[in-house]
Amino acid sequence: MLVSAILTSVGINSALCVLFVVLYSILKKQPSYYEVYIPRLLTEGNSKRRSRFNLERLIPSTGWLPKAWKLSEEEMLSSSGLDAVVYMRTITFCLKVFSFAGIIGIFILLPVNCSGTELHQIDFEDLYSNSLDVFTISNVNRGSKWLWIHFSSVYAITIFICYLLYHEYNYISSKRIAYFYSSKPQPHQFTILVRNIPVSAGSSVSDSVERFFTEYYPTTYLSHIVVRRTSKVQSLINDAKQLYRRLLHLQSEPSEQKYKQVGLFEKKDDLLDHYGKRLEDLEQNARLEQSEVSLAKDTHAAFVSFKTRYGASTVFHLQQSTNPTHWLTEEAPQPNDVFWPFFSSSFMGRWISKLLVVVACILLTILFLIPVVVVQGLTNLSQLEVWFPFLKSILTLAFVSQIVTGYLPSLILMLFLKIVPPIMEFLSSIQGYISHSEIERSACNKVLWFTVWNIFFATVFSGSVLNQISIALDPKNIPTKLAVVVPAQASFFIAYVVTSGWTSTSSELFRIIPLICSLMTKCCAESTDDEIEVPSIPYHRDIPRILFFGLLGIAYFFLAPVILPFLLVYFCLAYIIFRNQFINVYAPKHETAGKFWPIVHNLVIFSLVLMHAIAVGIFSLKKLSLASTLVLPLPVLTLLFNEYCRKRFLPIFTAYPAEILIKKDREDQNDATMSEFFDKLATTYQDPALMPIQYSADSESLNRPLIPSAEMSM
Amino acid sequence: MLVSAILTSVGINSALCVLFVVLYSILKKQPSYYEVYIPRLLTEGNSKRRSRFNLERLIPSTGWLPKAWKLSEEEMLSSSGLDAVVYMRTITFCLKVFSFAGIIGIFILLPVNCSGTELHQIDFEDLYSNSLDVFTISNVNRGSKWLWIHFSSVYAITIFICYLLYHEYNYISSKRIAYFYSSKPQPHQFTILVRNIPVSAGSSVSDSVERFFTEYYPTTYLSHIVVRRTSKVQSLINDAKQLYRRLLHLQSEPSEQKYKQVGLFEKKDDLLDHYGKRLEDLEQNARLEQSEVSLAKDTHAAFVSFKTRYGASTVFHLQQSTNPTHWLTEEAPQPNDVFWPFFSSSFMGRWISKLLVVVACILLTILFLIPVVVVQGLTNLSQLEVWFPFLKSILTLAFVSQIVTGYLPSLILMLFLKIVPPIMEFLSSIQGYISHSEIERSACNKVLWFTVWNIFFATVFSGSVLNQISIALDPKNIPTKLAVVVPAQASFFIAYVVTSGWTSTSSELFRIIPLICSLMTKCCAESTDDEIEVPSIPYHRDIPRILFFGLLGIAYFFLAPVILPFLLVYFCLAYIIFRNQFINVYAPKHETAGKFWPIVHNLVIFSLVLMHAIAVGIFSLKKLSLASTLVLPLPVLTLLFNEYCRKRFLPIFTAYPAEILIKKDREDQNDATMSEFFDKLATTYQDPALMPIQYSADSESLNRPLIPSAEMSM
Repeated sequence: MLVSAILTSVGINSALCVLFVVLYSILKKQPSYYEVYIPRLLTEGNSKRRSRFNLERLIPSTGWLPKAWKLSEEEMLSSSGLDAVVYMRTITFCLKVFSFAGIIGIFILLPVNCSGTELHQIDFEDLYSNSLDVFTISNVNRGSKWLWIHFSSVYAITIFICYLLYHEYNYISSKRIAYFYSSKPQPHQFTILVRNIPVSAGSSVSDSVERFFTEYYPTTYLSHIVVRRTSKVQSLINDAKQLYRRLLHLQSEPSEQKYKQVGLFEKKDDLLDHYGKRLEDLEQNARLEQSEVSLAKDTHAAFVSFKTRYGASTVFHLQQSTNPTHWLTEEAPQPNDVFWPFFSSSFMGRWISKLLVVVACILLTILFLIPVVVVQGLTNLSQLEVWFPFLKSILTLAFVSQIVTGYLPSLILMLFLKIVPPIMEFLSSIQGYISHSEIERSACNKVLWFTVWNIFFATVFSGSVLNQISIALDPKNIPTKLAVVVPAQASFFIAYVVTSGWTSTSSELFRIIPLICSLMTKCCAESTDDEIEVPSIPYHRDIPRILFFGLLGIAYFFLAPVILPFLLVYFCLAYIIFRNQFINVYAPKHETAGKFWPIVHNLVIFSLVLMHAIAVGIFSLKKLSLASTLVLPLPVLTLLFNEYCRKRFLPIFTAYPAEILIKKDREDQNDATMSEFFDKLATTYQDPALMPIQYSADSESLNRPLIPSAEMSM
Repeated sequence: MLVSAILTSVGINSALCVLFVVLYSILKKQPSYYEVYIPRLLTEGNSKRRSRFNLERLIPSTGWLPKAWKLSEEEMLSSSGLDAVVYMRTITFCLKVFSFAGIIGIFILLPVNCSGTELHQIDFEDLYSNSLDVFTISNVNRGSKWLWIHFSSVYAITIFICYLLYHEYNYISSKRIAYFYSSKPQPHQFTILVRNIPVSAGSSVSDSVERFFTEYYPTTYLSHIVVRRTSKVQSLINDAKQLYRRLLHLQSEPSEQKYKQVGLFEKKDDLLDHYGKRLEDLEQNARLEQSEVSLAKDTHAAFVSFKTRYGASTVFHLQQSTNPTHWLTEEAPQPNDVFWPFFSSSFMGRWISKLLVVVACILLTILFLIPVVVVQGLTNLSQLEVWFPFLKSILTLAFVSQIVTGYLPSLILMLFLKIVPPIMEFLSSIQGYISHSEIERSACNKVLWFTVWNIFFATVFSGSVLNQISIALDPKNIPTKLAVVVPAQASFFIAYVVTSGWTSTSSELFRIIPLICSLMTKCCAESTDDEIEVPSIPYHRDIPRILFFGLLGIAYFFLAPVILPFLLVYFCLAYIIFRNQFINVYAPKHETAGKFWPIVHNLVIFSLVLMHAIAVGIFSLKKLSLASTLVLPLPVLTLLFNEYCRKRFLPIFTAYPAEILIKKDREDQNDATMSEFFDKLATTYQDPALMPIQYSADSESLNRPLIPSAEMSM
């Protein structure tokens, strides 16, 4: 790839970026798009729809930029929780790494690479016509002493990143503990989930739980709620909810309008009547189902609450029964984080579904490229000309044909990639996790390794699936293979960062897709203000993306330092926008208190080791076997560092220490509001599907405000 | 190898076995050898030295055989503890497996192998001159349908072994719980070891512990003892102990004897005086050192005791401090099981020593064969003739040369192998374990994998070390390589079982080596009756040996069924003898309640998967690729079975469940003796090196009985 080509690409994509920013600046001021651009402010009541028109609304403004930049960590912590802070720190971490790497790369490595003559001498007269390879390590002569500079830079960046990682892990750990320490009493701190409850003949799960915990934990046991299978009730309630919405919408419309489109009903009242009856029927069915659920076989699982955090924690940590597969304990998620639909509680059932999901994930990861390659194969020019003869004249234009052959395949790849996070989320959801946040974290991990394998390894080691597997099974040759293939792919990845990274990220960050979605739903016109859903950050989609670019940058750092400035711009972009789309758009639905940081840590360690593997290969290819040998201690030390961090910090991310639990419990002892809290706690983990249903009552009295009952908003 | 050769070997080794049994039967009745053959009965006072001579003493008797055979599990449990029971069950497990495998192997597989003509037709006229290979799978014709019988037998034996494994795991788990449930209150159930205790400036470790536990566990905390570095005191005390023994021995000898050998002292009293003074000096030094130890820097570790088992267990299971590397908790070992010498308590120190030990083990395992091969290389005939010219005439005899070339190399290998368990034990001891039993268990594991690698893999994949590593790094080719090499090595292993297995095991079991040791110490003649040491079972040496033969049998089961009868005899031998050297010789020093069963389980699973790998290779070599493919689900299912067992049973082997702990605690609540027990508990974990020293007082008053003070026997 020539310098001119990459610069053209940069130009096009920068222009797109600027376009999106302008669009964003204007549209966000239009009241009709508030639910797209500032749903959070809207629902929090911080912003009212202003209907008054003024000229300012049409001029792009930049006031939000410094506002987003200045937002302090404390403000973010209080408004969006610790997860958001950790997320931003992930981006800042990447920014720091690539600032340091960028300085070394641009001012030291790049000149060295350019001064080499292995490929061809750089043409300073006509910079644009140089190949990008001239700027990579491929251009350094074999056996050249200049390679020791690359060697030193590998050591320098490893030490710097490890230092940063330690610092971040330490900081986030302390934040996590401080967050817990400053938190008010929360239901999930006092509750655990117990599964596989053994039930003797003639008694119920509830009896079993009551008997067990009053016998063994008489002083700390508080209450319990048995979990039941409610998928049927849930679907009935969802139907009722939908019908109720339609009914509300109907009521709010001007009454003169005719309802020809429905066909049977000529008058609005008739239709209202019909809907009202159907709603009542549905509710009746749902209530019937609810009462049946309470009588039916339970799931052998229950949420058990205790009087102290320490009490809950001891029960969680200790094996309870002589049969280790009975009375299995898990930490309870936050009440609104519980994933109700899938409560398969049998030990074997969950175990088998987990195994199947793992197999499905591996197959998906390995076989993913097959349909992509097949579909991409269909987009070659001659094929298109056969299918769409009328395009023939257009396709002969050089520009169009370049786009079709150059962009269409990668567009198809990107579209296929877009469906991966939902698939992984689905797989995680049937794996037996009990909370949305756990599902998201697991999906995040899955997407991450999928991306690493498919985008990085599969693109680098192009070839058949079997070939890929055989490479994975033959670890000792990986460095050499990496060293041969990776530098050759450098320009591909530069282009990938610029196109996919900038455009897709900025388009998504500036909410182009939500805008389109909103426009489409506007046509259907059934939504009301009260139904604005404030999105939560899709961590399982965003973290893998951020980390993938981080991985790319670290792995290519000393090979192709030209990639670094592009990445810097990318992370700056991400930095500003995410700080903004936290203020206005995203609201945390549940809080894991930064539990996903270990994922970030692990991937950075992985990318460091990958860089070392590439370095070993490169230095031996470049006939500098001494350097190749001297790199070897680096991955070992990095892995030891990782092991140390695992011991030093990871336990903080899995459970809170006794010291703090006991201190917090003591603080609460003198708190008068605690008895009220405990009263509430007894019903907090009630399945929302088993709450009383009262839509028809709501819809009958038109005087009432048009909001769903409080129970439903849970 | 010809049938005649193996039968000759069987003959020689059986004869040796019989010789050992006869020797055992006679010598065990001689009072002067009681400390070799029945040290346990002797110290327990169940047997007195009979000095009266009678003829019966010289006639070999077999009365002990049925006695050993009839010993019931309950008797063994009460006399030798659960570890001994589990050990015997391991042998019984092997017996069961090889009975089943033997029936299939001899009556079904062997005829099939013999009827093949791939190598050459069996010569029924002169059975002795057949090669052993005729009896192995190598003789079955390629693509023969008879191979499906081997295929079915692989499935049958896998199912049978998995069933047995499940049954054993289940049985031992329940025994373990029953054992705990029936046990009296024991100090280690109420105690935990706390390491890495943070100490603020100006305070001591003891203060820190006291403050922490009285603050956070005021209701359950009982007492603590800070661990100190006492290696210097210990060595002084050992010197004093030795001197004291010599003094005692001197006092008991007839006073007229002259002491020319000492040179300086002509009279006994002078010598006694001299020794007495030296003893006093030593004791003075030791006391000085003891008082210094109490003032010196502590190890930042302490044994902390609680009022309930459940209390100790909760503190053990929960992370205590916000810094997960502080207040690290471990379950306390039994007081006499504590390994005092090595108490490096710093987190990093232990971590680094562990890493170094792991590296040392891997190096030892991989590089072990180099010195062995070098030494073996020196034993070739021409080399010997050059070194020892006088042997020339003897070496020309065919029989002698066969022994020298055939037996000497394997003798050298065996001698080298003998030093492995002590080395592994030493490595485990510096790894940071706090109890003898943990060290032994870790050493057992190390020896096991050392044996598997060196005897099995390294012999099978003969070649350079690098070659071995490259095979390990190339897993997908292992089945084919195994299939090529393993059957060819079958006769070698048959010979190995017969020679090494029978002779070495029976010689050791019949206590030939302890006999020699005893004869040698008899010459020095310094021991008295009170110093008879009752040996404990050297699990780290015996379990790997038992398991190695088990591994061999399972892996070779369908390849070379001729190996099975030999193994059956081996295990029968082991069965009887161990039941007998439990009654008379071995006494348990500490009890892990069968904690080493998971090691046995894991190795059996490993050998099953190894067998499957060999089967895959064999069937594809024999052009029966369908069978080769159909074997593939078997290792997967076996590993899943293992994973299930890990979840179902392993937790029972790491900690006891809350249910039982609480029940036991409640039982004790009404026990009047508990307060006495708690009083004792406060000093139970005192380092024996810090106990009062009183040898010289003892030696001065000759009226006292000649036993070391009670404290020293701890």
